[in-house]
Amino acid sequence: METLNDIVGKNLKIYQDDEYFKFSLESVLLPNFVQVNLRTKKILDLCTGNAPIPLILSLKTKCKIIGVELQKEIYELARKSVKINQKEDQITILNEDVKNLNQIFQGDTFDLITVNPPYFKVSNQKVINNNLIKARARHENNLTLEQLLKIVTILLKNNGSFYMVHRTERFIEIINLLEKYHLTPKEIQFIYPYKKKDSKLFMIKCTKNGKNGVKIFDPLYIHQNDLTYTEEVKKMFE
Amino acid sequence: METLNDIVGKNLKIYQDDEYFKFSLESVLLPNFVQVNLRTKKILDLCTGNAPIPLILSLKTKCKIIGVELQKEIYELARKSVKINQKEDQITILNEDVKNLNQIFQGDTFDLITVNPPYFKVSNQKVINNNLIKARARHENNLTLEQLLKIVTILLKNNGSFYMVHRTERFIEIINLLEKYHLTPKEIQFIYPYKKKDSKLFMIKCTKNGKNGVKIFDPLYIHQNDLTYTEEVKKMFE
Repeated sequence: METLNDIVGKNLKIYQDDEYFKFSLESVLLPNFVQVNLRTKKILDLCTGNAPIPLILSLKTKCKIIGVELQKEIYELARKSVKINQKEDQITILNEDVKNLNQIFQGDTFDLITVNPPYFKVSNQKVINNNLIKARARHENNLTLEQLLKIVTILLKNNGSFYMVHRTERFIEIINLLEKYHLTPKEIQFIYPYKKKDSKLFMIKCTKNGKNGVKIFDPLYIHQNDLTYTEEVKKMFE
Repeated sequence: METLNDIVGKNLKIYQDDEYFKFSLESVLLPNFVQVNLRTKKILDLCTGNAPIPLILSLKTKCKIIGVELQKEIYELARKSVKINQKEDQITILNEDVKNLNQIFQGDTFDLITVNPPYFKVSNQKVINNNLIKARARHENNLTLEQLLKIVTILLKNNGSFYMVHRTERFIEIINLLEKYHLTPKEIQFIYPYKKKDSKLFMIKCTKNGKNGVKIFDPLYIHQNDLTYTEEVKKMFE
């Protein structure tokens, strides 16, 4: 069922649909982690879903933001979400396959690329979500991480920034792939569900052809031990 | 000046020398991070210094431990430290160059290898410690990380465990090198000087030819905000 929701504390509204797509906490954490500066002119958000990342980024910068969503049904939610927030001048949503973007944009076009990609590898042993639209948002059916990074490194300007959130379990594989595509990790923050547990997710900032040397930030805890949000997370919704 | 010190709370004594070598906090943190099990029969500690890691590990396991130290003066401190703790039956210290160990031991010999290696690359721009003995313990004058990992992967049994502590700044470079030598990262803990600061050091457990999939543990903070040790660190000295 389609609903119109608030992104709490952000003065933004977003269309969601139980059947297709609801934005996740990571879609708020990642744009919060992103640093935009005066040289940032053009931003691309891949696998944009119902556009939470472009919408939240639009509160931080005036520059053009393009969101790309493959699935028609989710793309429609994104378009409507951009419209109801009157952000059509700043945010453009494309209904496209990420793998084709190198035919649509020239190389070295974007200063900053963000993505909250499908997290799970496709494996025959695993039961994939029966709902194909949901499955594609979570599993690498249509787009593997390697295919995605190949496009990112083509479209990103030299020294441009690439921001991603992903599963910690796949961290080492991801570091090796980033290396292969000349995306140099510069800043990492691990996300923990709560204290004394292993990290489940991480956010990473890479620079295309950047110098070696990485910063690992103080971790981000999501919940206090009573399972309410930590002060740090609450602040993001203020 | 040579002194005989306690390793606090461990009921161990250790010889140190201001001029040559004093063991660091990391030499206590790393053996604390190490998991020994009943299948662990033979342990090797590289760049052993005055042998704090073999000594602390000897409290956790009865199995044979070999420590290797290149520098004669520090090797002597290690030998004396083993002797005063009456650990000569369990711990052997060799005065050898790590690079030659593949001529001394057969391949696939050790179940577990530990190292707290020199942290810093040698660079002409950098002023290296004038004291050559101290410099060698901190800088990769004689042994680069790549030379070290090459030996580790030869001497380690298949599926054996490799534990290292190193600088977070070099984390990505290290992950890439580990991959090259088939040492699969399985568990990582980042060490923070105190809260709200970036990580300075990390500890890593790798498995030779291990399966993909890594755990990032809850971080280890060294100091409370008043700069006293955290409860977690204090516990290690109990």
